[in-house]
Amino acid sequence: MLRGVLLDLGGVVYVGEAPLPGAVEAVDRLRASGLGVRFLTNTTRRPLSGMLQRLANLGLRAEPEELFMPAIAARQVLQRRGLRPHLLVHPALEEDFASLAGDRGTALVVGDAGERFTYAALNEAFRALVDGAAFLALARNRSFQDADGRLSLDAGPFVVGLEYALGREATVLGKPSADFFRAALDSLGCRPEQAVMVGDDVEADVGGALAAGIAGLLVRQGKYRNGDESRIEPPPTAVCDDLPAAVDWIVERAGD
Amino acid sequence: MLRGVLLDLGGVVYVGEAPLPGAVEAVDRLRASGLGVRFLTNTTRRPLSGMLQRLANLGLRAEPEELFMPAIAARQVLQRRGLRPHLLVHPALEEDFASLAGDRGTALVVGDAGERFTYAALNEAFRALVDGAAFLALARNRSFQDADGRLSLDAGPFVVGLEYALGREATVLGKPSADFFRAALDSLGCRPEQAVMVGDDVEADVGGALAAGIAGLLVRQGKYRNGDESRIEPPPTAVCDDLPAAVDWIVERAGD
Repeated sequence: MLRGVLLDLGGVVYVGEAPLPGAVEAVDRLRASGLGVRFLTNTTRRPLSGMLQRLANLGLRAEPEELFMPAIAARQVLQRRGLRPHLLVHPALEEDFASLAGDRGTALVVGDAGERFTYAALNEAFRALVDGAAFLALARNRSFQDADGRLSLDAGPFVVGLEYALGREATVLGKPSADFFRAALDSLGCRPEQAVMVGDDVEADVGGALAAGIAGLLVRQGKYRNGDESRIEPPPTAVCDDLPAAVDWIVERAGD
Repeated sequence: MLRGVLLDLGGVVYVGEAPLPGAVEAVDRLRASGLGVRFLTNTTRRPLSGMLQRLANLGLRAEPEELFMPAIAARQVLQRRGLRPHLLVHPALEEDFASLAGDRGTALVVGDAGERFTYAALNEAFRALVDGAAFLALARNRSFQDADGRLSLDAGPFVVGLEYALGREATVLGKPSADFFRAALDSLGCRPEQAVMVGDDVEADVGGALAAGIAGLLVRQGKYRNGDESRIEPPPTAVCDDLPAAVDWIVERAGD
C-alpha cells in the first residue's frame, strides 16, 4: 500500500515553460487521495526561489519543504562541514550558496553550469581538486531534453570528466543518491516500501529509487527514449505513458 | 636485446619550449648506438609541420616518418573510411585535416581543443554523435604539465564526458592504443619484444606499451608524480630519473 509519491519535475510535470497535458491536475488528484507528495528535481539551473515561482506559474502550489533540490542538499553539507564553496554552477543558482563562510577548507560544487563550462573554468576547478578541495556534484545526469526538443549535455559529463582527470570520485547530492531519496521519505514520515518515484530518467530517477528500496515508475515522455526500460536491472516497477496514467496506477495502490 | 626505442616527447625530451637537460644528446647517443628511434607524442595542439619545427628548434633532427601523432593516424582513418571530419581540436591542428572530402558520413574528432572546449562546441559534438557520427579521440590523456608547471586538463576528460553522455566508447588513436604502438614498430621493422617505450605518463606511455608487449620505461619527470610506478599492473619494466639515465639503461641492453 502506497503512502508517499516522489515526483520528478522536468519531463514529467513540465517541459521547458509549459506544463505537460493533465500533469497539474494529476498532482492535485494525488493529494486529494491523501498521498504525501514531494518533488525531487536535479535541476541545477534555478535556485529554490525560482523553482517555487515556476511551479506557481504552472498553477501548482508547493511549499519550500516539499521541494528537494541538489543545491539545497549541498548547502547543508557545506554548513555541516564548515567548507567554503568553489562554485561551477549556473549563475542563477548562486543565491542558494550565499553567506557560506566556512573556514575548514574548500569544496568544489559542480552543477549544470551551461555556458559557464569553459576550459578555463573547468581547469580552475580541476586545480582546486588537485589542491585537495572536497568534490560535490549536484547531479551526474547525462543529458536533458532542451527547449528545442533535442538532447543537451547535463552536468554529468563534466563531473565524470573531472573524476577521470583526478582519479577520485565526486559525492553526488541529487538523484540517484540514496541519501537524497531518503531525505524526501523522512520528511514524509514514510518507509521506502510505502513510496513510489515517478520519473522520465530511467537511471537517475527509476534506477536510483529502486536502489534505495523505493518503487520506480518510468514515464514515456521527456527524455525517455525507446528501450530505456530495458537499460536497468532490476527493471522499472511499472512503465506508463505520462503522469496522469502514472497517477491512475498509484491511486489504485494507495492506502494507509 | 633491444633494437628499437619509442620516445615520448613532452615531459621526456622537453617541457614547454625548453629541452630537458641532456635530452637532445641522449637521443643522439641512441642513434649512435645503432638503435632505431621513433617519437610517439599525444600532443594535439600542434600539426605535424609544427612539431617538426619545434624539434628542429631544440636541435633535434627528425624526419616526418619518424614522428607518430594521433592527428595523422586519424587522417588515415578518415581517408580509408571516406568520412568527413567534425573537428573539436586545437585550431593549429586543422591543417592536418585539410582536403578531406569523404561522402560516407561524418566522424567527430576530439583532441586537446584547449579554449575551444566551450559548452556550445561540446554540445554540438554530442548532438553529432547522437545523430550517428563516428567517434574518434586523438587521445584520452587525463592531464598534462602546463607551461606554469601545474597540471592542466588534457583531451581525456572531455572524451570520457562525451562517452558518458552518449553511452558509447570512442576509438582512441594515440597512446595507449596498441595500433598506435604497432604502427611505429612496423616502421622500424621491429618486434614488440625488441623495443622499449620511454615516457612520463605511467598509463598512456608505459601501461600502453606493456599492454602491446613492449617494455615500458617510466621517467621521473614531466607529469610524473610520486608513487606513479605502483599505479599500473604489471609495473613499469624500469624507472629512471630522466632520459639520459634511461638511455644508459637502454644502451646496456642494445643488440641485433
